[in-house]
This record gives sequence, structure tokens and C-alpha cells, in this order.
Amino acid sequence: MSNDLSRLKVQDLGEQALLQRLQRFCPEGIVGDDAAVLQTHPQLDLVITTDVLVDAVHFSVGLASPGVYTTSPTDVGWRAAAANLSDLAAMGAAPLGITVGLSAPGETPVVWIEQIYQGLTACLQQFNTPIVGGDVTRSPILTLAITAFGQVAPHQVIRRSTAQPGDAIVATGWHGASRAGLELLLHPEVGQELSESDRTYLIQAHQRPNPRLDILPYLLPSSPISHPSSLLSPPSRIAGMDSSDGLADAIVQICRMSRVGARVERSQIPIPPALTRWVSSEQAMQWALYGGEDFELVLCLEQAVAQALVEQLELGAAIVGTITKEPEVLLIDAAGHEPDETLALQKGFQHF
Amino acid sequence: MSNDLSRLKVQDLGEQALLQRLQRFCPEGIVGDDAAVLQTHPQLDLVITTDVLVDAVHFSVGLASPGVYTTSPTDVGWRAAAANLSDLAAMGAAPLGITVGLSAPGETPVVWIEQIYQGLTACLQQFNTPIVGGDVTRSPILTLAITAFGQVAPHQVIRRSTAQPGDAIVATGWHGASRAGLELLLHPEVGQELSESDRTYLIQAHQRPNPRLDILPYLLPSSPISHPSSLLSPPSRIAGMDSSDGLADAIVQICRMSRVGARVERSQIPIPPALTRWVSSEQAMQWALYGGEDFELVLCLEQAVAQALVEQLELGAAIVGTITKEPEVLLIDAAGHEPDETLALQKGFQHF
Repeated sequence: MSNDLSRLKVQDLGEQALLQRLQRFCPEGIVGDDAAVLQTHPQLDLVITTDVLVDAVHFSVGLASPGVYTTSPTDVGWRAAAANLSDLAAMGAAPLGITVGLSAPGETPVVWIEQIYQGLTACLQQFNTPIVGGDVTRSPILTLAITAFGQVAPHQVIRRSTAQPGDAIVATGWHGASRAGLELLLHPEVGQELSESDRTYLIQAHQRPNPRLDILPYLLPSSPISHPSSLLSPPSRIAGMDSSDGLADAIVQICRMSRVGARVERSQIPIPPALTRWVSSEQAMQWALYGGEDFELVLCLEQAVAQALVEQLELGAAIVGTITKEPEVLLIDAAGHEPDETLALQKGFQHF
Repeated sequence: MSNDLSRLKVQDLGEQALLQRLQRFCPEGIVGDDAAVLQTHPQLDLVITTDVLVDAVHFSVGLASPGVYTTSPTDVGWRAAAANLSDLAAMGAAPLGITVGLSAPGETPVVWIEQIYQGLTACLQQFNTPIVGGDVTRSPILTLAITAFGQVAPHQVIRRSTAQPGDAIVATGWHGASRAGLELLLHPEVGQELSESDRTYLIQAHQRPNPRLDILPYLLPSSPISHPSSLLSPPSRIAGMDSSDGLADAIVQICRMSRVGARVERSQIPIPPALTRWVSSEQAMQWALYGGEDFELVLCLEQAVAQALVEQLELGAAIVGTITKEPEVLLIDAAGHEPDETLALQKGFQHF
């Protein structure tokens, strides 16, 4: 790394450090969550999130790196929509719409572009969310910039910074499946022992993740989208974020922002059966904690509310641990077979 | 152009045709203006616009094309902010904030990225508009994706589709200066005969355009941002858009969307004196009509309102013509020296 500031390159810094340097251009208190919150109206906050996805960095349609092909254009679209809607879900916001900024090389087949849009709309339609605008331009590299926006009542915003000691930590579904699916796509020769349905399940988890907007109605009392059996009575406090960068990352980020710690119980991490049947428990645990892109929610709630939520959800939802006053984030083993392990941010130096 | 649809490439289509194909993925009525309008609240519409700018396509910082250098990173930021705020101004919307999606090669100097952000905030601060979020990622090419959003009362939205025969067409300021400034930047050897102040004025017009949000207070009665001498009484009708793609393009687009025509008077086109002192009147007229990036507003208003607006504005604001029932958009010469000319969209096939 160069000591001369004027010669410092972005590759010397990494994504997180660069983002931190750029935060001084943003008003305090607005950044630091999955999405920004703007007060536009006394009863309604506007929530905005933006993501840039670059061919051969975040996906491979085989244009920038011929032969490396893990994502069809349709899946690129689906995943981009899912990632942004997941950020809205993580803030407790109901989606209003997205904009799409697409840049592409001149030789890109038009059908690919249309397939990207088909993937976007296929994911968005589940949540009645429109594409409300866009820009298309020439570029040497296929790039998709999505901005999603939604709205939420000010007292129902889910933030990373409000977890309190004693809260239960809920993971809303299986973790590790997306990373396992990527492995199968990158190395088609592996996993021959998997059943066809396990294989399909893992690959689908990677290609067609579902943002957990379905969780919000349980958490939002007295809202147009609230579920009849809404679990909370206002004013209730929920801390949380999504697990797009892995379950460990989500728990550590929430703890950092809330200035608390956590004890996470190894045996409670929801690892999908298909994964357990394929790889070692150690590998499965690594992918569950650090694989990322499962797009589940990680929520910190009072124990009774957490218990009720997990009972209403299916497919791997679990209370995985407890928020503690002590700042460490520990992976513990109640059975005593494994030593305590400190959970860390895996993705601190990425994308440059 | 290929006849086989599956082999059609985006370069065979061009930007406009591709955008048109993609509009079927958007709800009807939402696209077609400078920005999208979403009803989020009975008293308040959300206005959203998005732009993608690519190095060596929309600007040249000298990274993608060494030696071709027309834009400093600070100016890239300023211009990106200005273009997006101009889209909001064109819709009558007060800005709320922008998001920034930045992708850059690893070898990009960190100071450049910071300068882009400085340029963005320098332009935004004039209008108390924050950067509320962003994403930073690795890419082979420097790309800036901006999404800007603002709000406007539903009855005060300025659309392209509401011009009526008899309306006066107002250009809010000089046209052609930005294109002239670009010429000076691309060919430093030309324009030696220009005075230093003329030269600076033209280059500034290109590098530091100002979105005309200052016009809105005159047009918005009974709004928090309305000017004491607001010219309109509700409900009033304004059609308009910005002149980012040129004055001719703006007039033609408004006429198409409103299913009307226009007669534009050659002698009324506001060409800056610095330009008149430099190039032939024919060249100046070409740049004023088709040069683009002046980021003025082109508004269609009742004659009396238009007259009052022009009197309140300075620096080249003018009534340039009249909306007609006949669908032609004609550039006429009242003095009879030049034959009538049909104005056309210059930018129909661009950016691929």
C-alpha cells in the first residue's frame, strides 16, 4: 500500500475502506444500514437502496470471461431485483419500485438484455413492484445499477443499531445453500452423489433467491400490509439486517452498530438438509456463516416474539443465539465438542 | 442489421430503439418524461430519475482513453449531479436526495473518486440535496450511476404531454454554450481569438452546468418553495422538459408527446454573445439547437405567464416560439432571409 496519499489507488483500499472514506460526503445518520431512510412525510419514511453489479465481478454471463458462465441473463435480473428488495425487507419497508441503469457492450445480444428485464420483472411481480424508469448506455462491460425504494412508517423502521442484551437472534431461513449452489455451477463435476432434487434446490437457492418481504406482515402491526396474526404491538423494537454477506457478517454488523455482543449456538445454525447430505459439517458451517447471498433476514427480538415468529415461519427459521452485553460475538457449542470461536467479518476487503 | 431476432445485437438497435423495446417491462404511463412519477401519498408524488455515465462515452477523465481528457473528476461529479437535478426540475420536483453507484478500475486514484464526490456535493449543496447512499465496486471501466428523487404536489407535475396550441414556448436561458465549451476542450488550438472571459464562460457552461431548480418557485403557487411573486394560480398547466439533448430535441419531444406542432422563430433563439463573437451564425444556431447539455428548461405556458416569467429571469431567457395545432415543428425566419426548416431529433441513434 502506498504511503503517498495522492498515489493511493482504490485497489490499495478495498471496498469497505473506500466506502468509509466516502461516507463523509453523506449526512450523518443516513448511511450505515441496508438502505437509507429519508423523512419525506410525518407518517411515511422513504427507504432507498442502490447496488451495482458488474459482469465477471458479481456474475458471469460469459461475455467478459468466455467459458466462465454461472448466471443466465434472466438470473442476473432476478438476483439483482432480489438483492435490492432484500435490502428494503431488512429495513421493514414495503417496495414502491426500482430503477434500472444498464450499460452493455454493443455486441451484447438484444435478447440477453430482454432476459435481464424478464428476470427483474419475474422477481418484482411477486411483490407487485414495478420498474419505474431506467437508462441504457454503451459500455465495454455489462453493468447493472439498480436503485430500489420503498416506504415504511417511521416507528417501524428496522435498524442495525437497536439490538439489546437479552434479545433472541432469529435467522428467517436456511443458510449456506446459495454458496453451495454456486459451487455446483462453478464446478459441474462435483456433487455427483447429490440427488437431482437436492442439486436443483441448491442451484435454485443461488440463482433465484427470494427476498423475505413475506416476513414483514408478521412484524408490522397496524399497517396496510400487516398479517392478521401480527406478533408485535406498537411501539415495538426490532433490530436487523439481511444476510446477503453471510450470517456471521449480519450478526457481527448488528452487534457493532448496537454496541453489544452475541452468543450464537452452533447446533442452531439452520443448515439445509441437502447441504448436510453432501459436504462435511465443517464445510457446511463455513458456507452457512460466510457464504453469503442467502438473502434471509437476521432479526433481534424479544425472546417471546422471536419464539412466536419462528413457529409461524417454515424452512429453517430458527433462534440461533442471544444478544449479550459483552462485546464479543462468539460461536459456542452447548454440547462442548467444539471450542468457542469468534465470528468475524469475512468480506472486509473485496471487489477491488 | 440482422433479420434474425435472436442474433440482433444492441449496436444494431441504438439507445432509443432499445429503450423503447424495454418499455414493455414498465407500467404504462410511468415512463416517457424526464423522470418517473409515483403516487406515494395523496398530497405528494415521488419523482425518480436515473442516469448512467461511462468513461470515454459520456466523459473523458483520461483513464479509458489516455490523452483524451475533457473532464476532471470533479466536473464529472458536478455534471452528473446537474443532469439528474435538471431532470427533477423538468418535472417540477424539489430534490430530496441522490444515490451514487460507482464502479472503477482498481488502478483509479482514490483522490479521483473523492473528487467525483466533491463535484457531486458541490453541485448538490446549492440545493441542500444530500447523497443518501451508494455502492462502490470494481469494474474495468469508470462508471457512475446516479438516481435522483424528489417530490412534487400531484397537480404541479410538469409533463411533456400537456402543451396546447397557442402556448408560448419559453427557453429559460442561453443555448449552445455547452457544446462550444466542449469544442474548446477537445481542440485547445481553436478559439484563439476569444477573450479570456468568453473562453472561460463557454468552458464553464460545459463543465459546470446549473440545473434550473431556481425556476420552480416562480411556477409553483402555494408550495413551501414558491416565490413571493409566483406567476401561476392553481390549477395551472405547464408542459415542459429540460434541454439536455438540445433545444430542438426538447421542442420536438414536447410536440410529439402533446400531439401538437410548433413555430420557432430563428431570431429568438437565445444564443450567448460569447458564441456569436466566435463562430458563424449558422454554426452557433446548430450548436444552440442540437448541441445539448445546456440543461435549461423548455416550458410551454400561456402567453401572459410566459411573458412575465421571461421578464423575471435573466441571461438569455426568451419566448422562442408558439405551439401550433399543425403537427410540424418548424424553424421560421420572420425576416424572410432563411427558408423554413423542420426541426428534428438529432439523438435518435446514439450511445451504442
